[in-house]
Amino acid sequence: MSISPPDDLVASVTFDDRGLVPAIAQQEGTGEVLMMAWMNAESLRATLETGWATYWSRSRGELWRKGETSGHLQRVRAVHADCDGDTLLLTVDQTGPACHTGTRTCFTGRELVMPPAAVDPEEAAR
Amino acid sequence: MSISPPDDLVASVTFDDRGLVPAIAQQEGTGEVLMMAWMNAESLRATLETGWATYWSRSRGELWRKGETSGHLQRVRAVHADCDGDTLLLTVDQTGPACHTGTRTCFTGRELVMPPAAVDPEEAAR
Repeated sequence: MSISPPDDLVASVTFDDRGLVPAIAQQEGTGEVLMMAWMNAESLRATLETGWATYWSRSRGELWRKGETSGHLQRVRAVHADCDGDTLLLTVDQTGPACHTGTRTCFTGRELVMPPAAVDPEEAAR
Repeated sequence: MSISPPDDLVASVTFDDRGLVPAIAQQEGTGEVLMMAWMNAESLRATLETGWATYWSRSRGELWRKGETSGHLQRVRAVHADCDGDTLLLTVDQTGPACHTGTRTCFTGRELVMPPAAVDPEEAAR
């Protein structure tokens, strides 16, 4: 299934009660999950029209073209909605680090180490 | 940076005003983004303790061990928080399809086709 053009695309997405939808950015080729941010209808439309990932900054209350200040832009190759249309997956080509902390992804080096019992298949067998 | 054990891990995560955090499930090895669902503190604790991805069903208002009914379980290999601790990335080994529609991922075949102008680098040049 594919949908176009922009207004139809935007209308096909289910935004939450704040008018937002979570958008996951994944690096083309490597498959790295770079970050998750939020889009409103306007930012999704801007993303689809320009091909640059554009999010909604909840803290600043404004459109935010990712990398506009830092230069760490995301060229969007594809956008997929999920089965119930309330989450987006962006396939992007990320320039430089995706994270404002300077790491490649926002998840780099931030592991929650699981207890040994959870990692042992015997212990975790149903 | 790594954090343990479970209660400390859970305390390190920032839940939203509904007590939830988005959790992205990614297939180990292939890097496929399988789905995004929500966790509350209880479901994150259950995930970390059992090693089986356990979400919070917003529609049913209950803990939901993914695949409990369908058998399409997710064995959790690692959990990473993002830079501001309000999104989780689960590295999992998915049994069967991740999506209740029967597709491998919840994003399979649901592309929002971008307008040609957005795909053309000339048009989209800043």
